[in-house]
Amino acid sequence: MRRTVLFISDGTAITAETFGHSLLTQFKGTEFRQVRLPFVDTREKAEDAVQLINRASEVDGRRALVFNTIVDSDVSEVLGTSDGHVFDLFGTFLPPLEEILGQSRSDSVGEAHGIRDSQGYEDRMEATNYALTHDDGISKRLDEADVVLVGVSRSGKTPTCLYMALHFGIKAANYPLTEEDLEKPRLPDFLRKHRRKLFGLTIDAGRLSEIRQVRRPDSRYASLKQCRYEVDAAEALLRAEGVPMLSSTSASVEELGSRILLELGLQRDLF
Amino acid sequence: MRRTVLFISDGTAITAETFGHSLLTQFKGTEFRQVRLPFVDTREKAEDAVQLINRASEVDGRRALVFNTIVDSDVSEVLGTSDGHVFDLFGTFLPPLEEILGQSRSDSVGEAHGIRDSQGYEDRMEATNYALTHDDGISKRLDEADVVLVGVSRSGKTPTCLYMALHFGIKAANYPLTEEDLEKPRLPDFLRKHRRKLFGLTIDAGRLSEIRQVRRPDSRYASLKQCRYEVDAAEALLRAEGVPMLSSTSASVEELGSRILLELGLQRDLF
Repeated sequence: MRRTVLFISDGTAITAETFGHSLLTQFKGTEFRQVRLPFVDTREKAEDAVQLINRASEVDGRRALVFNTIVDSDVSEVLGTSDGHVFDLFGTFLPPLEEILGQSRSDSVGEAHGIRDSQGYEDRMEATNYALTHDDGISKRLDEADVVLVGVSRSGKTPTCLYMALHFGIKAANYPLTEEDLEKPRLPDFLRKHRRKLFGLTIDAGRLSEIRQVRRPDSRYASLKQCRYEVDAAEALLRAEGVPMLSSTSASVEELGSRILLELGLQRDLF
Repeated sequence: MRRTVLFISDGTAITAETFGHSLLTQFKGTEFRQVRLPFVDTREKAEDAVQLINRASEVDGRRALVFNTIVDSDVSEVLGTSDGHVFDLFGTFLPPLEEILGQSRSDSVGEAHGIRDSQGYEDRMEATNYALTHDDGISKRLDEADVVLVGVSRSGKTPTCLYMALHFGIKAANYPLTEEDLEKPRLPDFLRKHRRKLFGLTIDAGRLSEIRQVRRPDSRYASLKQCRYEVDAAEALLRAEGVPMLSSTSASVEELGSRILLELGLQRDLF
């Protein structure tokens, strides 16, 4: 029961893929072969895409699904000549938006895909640089940080910081709690000073042991006993200090990043 | 002419925001105040969202726009009672998909938002770790790399590598061309060995000078003359070695990452 799904855009097709993927996870019974076709920005390239759609439909014995976010309607309409079921994401919502806003669309491909919204983009690049130079306790000067993630080694701090920086332009530092830190009743002073920016990341001890096992097989560091000790001590310390916490055991960096922004009030507020 | 736009989801609302943002860039005349409301996963939270929508509509003097990707239709329908124009992204496409696939949706909120597709997610985390330990020429052992970005200092290699790793699970290393490298007629041997994985990143010399100026004001490193020399020499060297190149001057990391994957054939192929 295989069916091919194509995400097609004149830009990166990341929006089409993310959106289409969310929809498809609602259907269990079918095996979807998902393919992204970016930069389809001429009628010729769209005709090539039509060939791929038709061939996939033939091979699978069922019509391919197509999620299309091509802005230029001249190019987009070519996909309509294919054998696939085409979901035209822009075509569906632009007409009602035009009516509500009382304006016509301006057909600017580049901007639709956010090739550069200058200041926001610069902020993201600067934040990424910040995350790199404030990763893993490298720097204890945290005045500029928007958020400081704290947790035991391999609890997911680094990728979460990088995601927040790269996606949201948030300056995210992180500090790994060492055994020495865990033996003390308080967090180190350079962290306490910034208490309102602190956020704890915890993880199930069994999962942590698996992750550490990959790095240093059969070490004390990776042992379940050591992981249990560290996780318990870190949670107790963060609770005592009133630092909010999330678990990375079954949450993605996207979810962690979003929740941290929300809980620390780093989201733009409406009022 | 301000109008508030809310991106609302029971997950991170990143899909809703990305998609809605793409649509809105098509309309120039209006100033949009864009707000993301993630984790709206109960009827109570949806009712709170309705209050925000109504208040924004009142303050702006025009009905707010709402892009909604709530999976649970019980929660989603609450938004329909607001004063906003609600675009129900899942509600629009799920019914035709159900018909095409001959299946009902399974209403699994978590998976719709990709909280964890295990192997893919692990690959992304591993690739992120790889990018960090193979950033900026730290490691010259590139056997495991899927791609190695090469370019002068501050041409955008690091954030592009991190994006490819975090988003696509691609193991991306990078190497900054030094003045010493630029004086030679060939790339260093440890790079030439992996020539098919190499990808050049270049940048407009004026833009490079601006970027370097922030880091080391009024230095030789940041001078336009030096930037011109390095960019010209790097482009000549990469051309001579037959390494494909892209410019980061006006392309985002999303666009660069996608194009590099496509050009190096690292995208999943259809046939």
